Amino acid sequence: MVRVGVAGYGVIGQRLADGIALQKDMELVGVVDVAPTLSVKALKEKGMPYAFYAATEESIPNLEKHGIPVSGTMEDMLKKVDIMLDATGAGIGAKNKVLYEKYGVKAVFQGGESNNVADVFFHGYANYEEGLGKNFLKLTSCNTTGLIRAIDCLDRKVGIEKVAITIVRRVADPGDYHRGLTNALQVDKAPNHQAIDLMTIMPHIDATGLLIHTPVTHGHFISVVATPKADMEIDEVIAAFSEHDRIRVVSIDEGFLGNASLFRYARDLGNPRGDMYEIAVWRDTVVKSGKDIMFGIHIPQESVTIPETIDAVRAALGMETDRLKAVGETNKYLGMGAWK
Amino acid sequence: MVRVGVAGYGVIGQRLADGIALQKDMELVGVVDVAPTLSVKALKEKGMPYAFYAATEESIPNLEKHGIPVSGTMEDMLKKVDIMLDATGAGIGAKNKVLYEKYGVKAVFQGGESNNVADVFFHGYANYEEGLGKNFLKLTSCNTTGLIRAIDCLDRKVGIEKVAITIVRRVADPGDYHRGLTNALQVDKAPNHQAIDLMTIMPHIDATGLLIHTPVTHGHFISVVATPKADMEIDEVIAAFSEHDRIRVVSIDEGFLGNASLFRYARDLGNPRGDMYEIAVWRDTVVKSGKDIMFGIHIPQESVTIPETIDAVRAALGMETDRLKAVGETNKYLGMGAWK
Amino acid sequence: MVRVGVAGYGVIGQRLADGIALQKDMELVGVVDVAPTLSVKALKEKGMPYAFYAATEESIPNLEKHGIPVSGTMEDMLKKVDIMLDATGAGIGAKNKVLYEKYGVKAVFQGGESNNVADVFFHGYANYEEGLGKNFLKLTSCNTTGLIRAIDCLDRKVGIEKVAITIVRRVADPGDYHRGLTNALQVDKAPNHQAIDLMTIMPHIDATGLLIHTPVTHGHFISVVATPKADMEIDEVIAAFSEHDRIRVVSIDEGFLGNASLFRYARDLGNPRGDMYEIAVWRDTVVKSGKDIMFGIHIPQESVTIPETIDAVRAALGMETDRLKAVGETNKYLGMGAWK
Amino acid sequence: MVRVGVAGYGVIGQRLADGIALQKDMELVGVVDVAPTLSVKALKEKGMPYAFYAATEESIPNLEKHGIPVSGTMEDMLKKVDIMLDATGAGIGAKNKVLYEKYGVKAVFQGGESNNVADVFFHGYANYEEGLGKNFLKLTSCNTTGLIRAIDCLDRKVGIEKVAITIVRRVADPGDYHRGLTNALQVDKAPNHQAIDLMTIMPHIDATGLLIHTPVTHGHFISVVATPKADMEIDEVIAAFSEHDRIRVVSIDEGFLGNASLFRYARDLGNPRGDMYEIAVWRDTVVKSGKDIMFGIHIPQESVTIPETIDAVRAALGMETDRLKAVGETNKYLGMGAWK
Repeated sequence: MVRVGVAGYGVIGQRLADGIALQKDMELVGVVDVAPTLSVKALKEKGMPYAFYAATEESIPNLEKHGIPVSGTMEDMLKKVDIMLDATGAGIGAKNKVLYEKYGVKAVFQGGESNNVADVFFHGYANYEEGLGKNFLKLTSCNTTGLIRAIDCLDRKVGIEKVAITIVRRVADPGDYHRGLTNALQVDKAPNHQAIDLMTIMPHIDATGLLIHTPVTHGHFISVVATPKADMEIDEVIAAFSEHDRIRVVSIDEGFLGNASLFRYARDLGNPRGDMYEIAVWRDTVVKSGKDIMFGIHIPQESVTIPETIDAVRAALGMETDRLKAVGETNKYLGMGAWK
Repeated sequence: MVRVGVAGYGVIGQRLADGIALQKDMELVGVVDVAPTLSVKALKEKGMPYAFYAATEESIPNLEKHGIPVSGTMEDMLKKVDIMLDATGAGIGAKNKVLYEKYGVKAVFQGGESNNVADVFFHGYANYEEGLGKNFLKLTSCNTTGLIRAIDCLDRKVGIEKVAITIVRRVADPGDYHRGLTNALQVDKAPNHQAIDLMTIMPHIDATGLLIHTPVTHGHFISVVATPKADMEIDEVIAAFSEHDRIRVVSIDEGFLGNASLFRYARDLGNPRGDMYEIAVWRDTVVKSGKDIMFGIHIPQESVTIPETIDAVRAALGMETDRLKAVGETNKYLGMGAWK
Repeated sequence: MVRVGVAGYGVIGQRLADGIALQKDMELVGVVDVAPTLSVKALKEKGMPYAFYAATEESIPNLEKHGIPVSGTMEDMLKKVDIMLDATGAGIGAKNKVLYEKYGVKAVFQGGESNNVADVFFHGYANYEEGLGKNFLKLTSCNTTGLIRAIDCLDRKVGIEKVAITIVRRVADPGDYHRGLTNALQVDKAPNHQAIDLMTIMPHIDATGLLIHTPVTHGHFISVVATPKADMEIDEVIAAFSEHDRIRVVSIDEGFLGNASLFRYARDLGNPRGDMYEIAVWRDTVVKSGKDIMFGIHIPQESVTIPETIDAVRAALGMETDRLKAVGETNKYLGMGAWK
Repeated sequence: MVRVGVAGYGVIGQRLADGIALQKDMELVGVVDVAPTLSVKALKEKGMPYAFYAATEESIPNLEKHGIPVSGTMEDMLKKVDIMLDATGAGIGAKNKVLYEKYGVKAVFQGGESNNVADVFFHGYANYEEGLGKNFLKLTSCNTTGLIRAIDCLDRKVGIEKVAITIVRRVADPGDYHRGLTNALQVDKAPNHQAIDLMTIMPHIDATGLLIHTPVTHGHFISVVATPKADMEIDEVIAAFSEHDRIRVVSIDEGFLGNASLFRYARDLGNPRGDMYEIAVWRDTVVKSGKDIMFGIHIPQESVTIPETIDAVRAALGMETDRLKAVGETNKYLGMGAWK
């Protein structure tokens, strides 16, 4: 049993903890945070299913004042873990890395952290082998993680030469007030970082793209124009996506009218927090432009990186050297693909 | 064990089924719907924890075509139940009532149904006794149910003479596309039906109010100006609300910045669908205007009527004649008040 | 002076009337509507700058009851005009056509009307010659009109082979309550009609695309991937757009952060209703994907079709046979290109 | 002719300049800003109808680099004016005051500035006499200005004892990206500052209230519960509002479904920027709660303070000592009440 800790009990950190707790070959040692946030208060109201550690000695009094049972500091936890999943705010991961090195603990950082904090920029399906045995890995961001799933899926079938993407980005998570957009579409400078990041992970593909922020909270939408090396029929594209354990193929006729349908469906499934680990591709959006393939993807921004982060644990700790076996283990414990 | 069925497996019906399944003195016989909606497909993907009945004979082929296991028709179910919780669309409940009468089954309708379908307009806390032994009960709507909880709470302390309410209404549920509002506040004719309905349940109170629709999905907000018969200090108001098992007193300082915080908190609690049965009152909003008490309430529109609907089962079937014991049973099985 | 009437005094009809009133070689005979809508009431409050005709004899009493001065019926107006601009709701234009034929009046229909109502599907820049002398013309819809401006601009430079577009559609106009979307991105079946329509106007181009509805009101955004016949540098693309009198090239650094900036800018310019006739292309979005050119367009949905509709008047009545002279006249009277 | 300058050419400053330019007894000397914002660029594109002064010497090069014709610095302007309307960002007005004092120029500050910058907190209708001859006045904020219009209107009829208000606040202006809210209602601590401010202007009234932020841009909505000293019938309330030149009484039946209808109507009227100076009260919202009067107000946040700010010029410079004559002059030049 490898021992895993989670730093930062926010939107991503909570979901990482839940995901690790489902892996039968991993042990969740506990979670770390610095303040009695709503998420930490919810952990307490749930009866502390996970041990909680204070980020620093100084943060303990305030946590205890709010009734949070504290099992120690992050340094106490670092003595007990093999690897940390760092989901702290941007910039904090870099500081934490000093501690990880001090205690000889490996770490996986999330996409918000700067690239140079890590030895390798990682995606479970696309470059699993690159992560093997590494000490510090950084996950791709939510959009990039989901996008690469789909591109890698086609790339392994026929080869992909180039992609041009348009990201219709949800601007805030449910419960965010510190960022938001009201009745506006906001444009970013192109190319967006997701296209750049895709090329870092898949250097044989030429990628570019636009991004536009929209005032919604339940998932990004990516429109992809992909140029394959060999011609691929629409049915073949759909079949390839349908086989993938981290991709759901959905359709408008079934009732999936947009991103909010997927959130509602995940809630109706009883998934904790209404989360979904899979991206979705709408069958109705797969069309061809000459040889190019065009399609639309749904990215559940809060939960999409969880599986690939768990893959990163398998790679970093060398739990499994075979890419497909590794992602298969993660999928099995997360229940992915079970809907088929 | 009383036997309960649910008609209409939509936003409310699903939550009624889940709530009934938690009552140790009730048996959920099954749920009814007419089409393979996303919610019905989710039931199937979950492995059919509840038996599913087709609304009509004619609807079976389409349901089976979509792979939904059908246990029979609604009439088949009616032979097995004591009471139906009817959460079908407006107008359908009145048609279903003919069947309920045919099979000698009692029923509880939701707020969208017209009042004359029922023998009594019901609220668990405010007029439990009125529902005792009745055949057909109709629940108050989501806003009215939550509002009455708070008004009844104060009314039983000091007596309430009149209330003037302003409802800031969420315009759609998450996943709705058939209704919506974009960058607009829409005004309704006053007085709103919630004030009228409150007076039907609590005829000794004079109520009026305005309603404005807002483009959000995670909960209504009601601003209340209540005139008490005896003076009440702010601390006493907060204490009264704090004692109530279906009211949470929250504050901005804790992190509850608005309606989306309560949704996020319920998701973080791991509540199915991110639901919350309680209404919330912000401590920060309780102020006085002369003798009048003013405060703001959060109404989780998807789930707030579930407890009072279960209370209605207890009343209709005479499972418990004492108001407080009845609501206490419901609360116990739903885990309400456990956070204190 | 050609004599022009406008049927339907709604979002588009009002703007057509204002646009015609600015053309020194056209006379606005009046406007037609059937009911005392807010727009008709505003016309009255403005002091009736345009003569108003009732759609039918039957509609006069209600209009007069609301104090609207009525100059006669639409049939009275049809005796005085050479051409009608029909901006009535979908389906009504087809009925009106019978009257237009009865009075020997030409007509230009808007994009919502079905194609078979017209002799030709028209765009001022792309196929002006097709409209010459025709009796019934139909304009492309708002998205298609703006999109074709940009594609035609590049097509006349180097030739365009194919385009793949992603439309991020504003779901409602300011002041709409009958349609709306709240916290959801809604997906349409692909290919969208705008791609199909583009191919009708420009049959030598292969077009496809996706469309996603977003909860905003101030302008559509289109992401275009265009494959040119000859290579074109980014600077050349920007230069081509900059020369065009119906395209503004804008940038984020100037303060144009998104669609709402363009609406604000047009309001600050003092443009009536805060309208803008030009589409905008963000300099920051022009990138290349291999040889393909990618860029983002802003479409001001309420006003973008006005210039091309006025071009249609010139074509239908044979006021000018030369394409560039015709659009140049329209531009001059509308003040387009004056900002340069 | 009194000579007026405007500092800060943003949302409010532009509208103040336009409003002053309409007053036949005032001369607009020019406007000041520090940077080539979109609004300043629009002034240039319009052909510089107003002289433009740079806030500081240092800001001139950047302004000129962007092609803005600069007539001098703010200090140059201060030599030519009698009074400044300061619509700069919060905190800057206090710094500017030093310059105003240096040049012996009076000033009117907007609601965002701190109260102690001014000799008097001012509202044209409610306390005009307080502003007479004062050097530094501060306007009430947009919500308070509109609210006081309505309360003062009733107060002068029958006397108002107390008010309890619920503000449904638009969270951002059209074109704002730096603040926004997505799918959330955000609650403020009560009582809100508008209630406090009302009591400063009208100390004989007891006021309190709640405020909730909503994700819309076209106007605040205020729900008022007012306790009159003498009983007042609904018809009398409506009649009182109808007589007021800065209040429009509207109804749902006419087509005013919400705040976006008023914005659309103002656009259709051809008002610059789609602005409206009047607040609106919905006839449909006027109800009684016992003796208390309840009603709903629309506040057009971008333009509502313009008339009262112009009143402040009349008071500060002693142009008119009679309250009703003063506001009447402002109204006449702004065209208010002309719709009746």
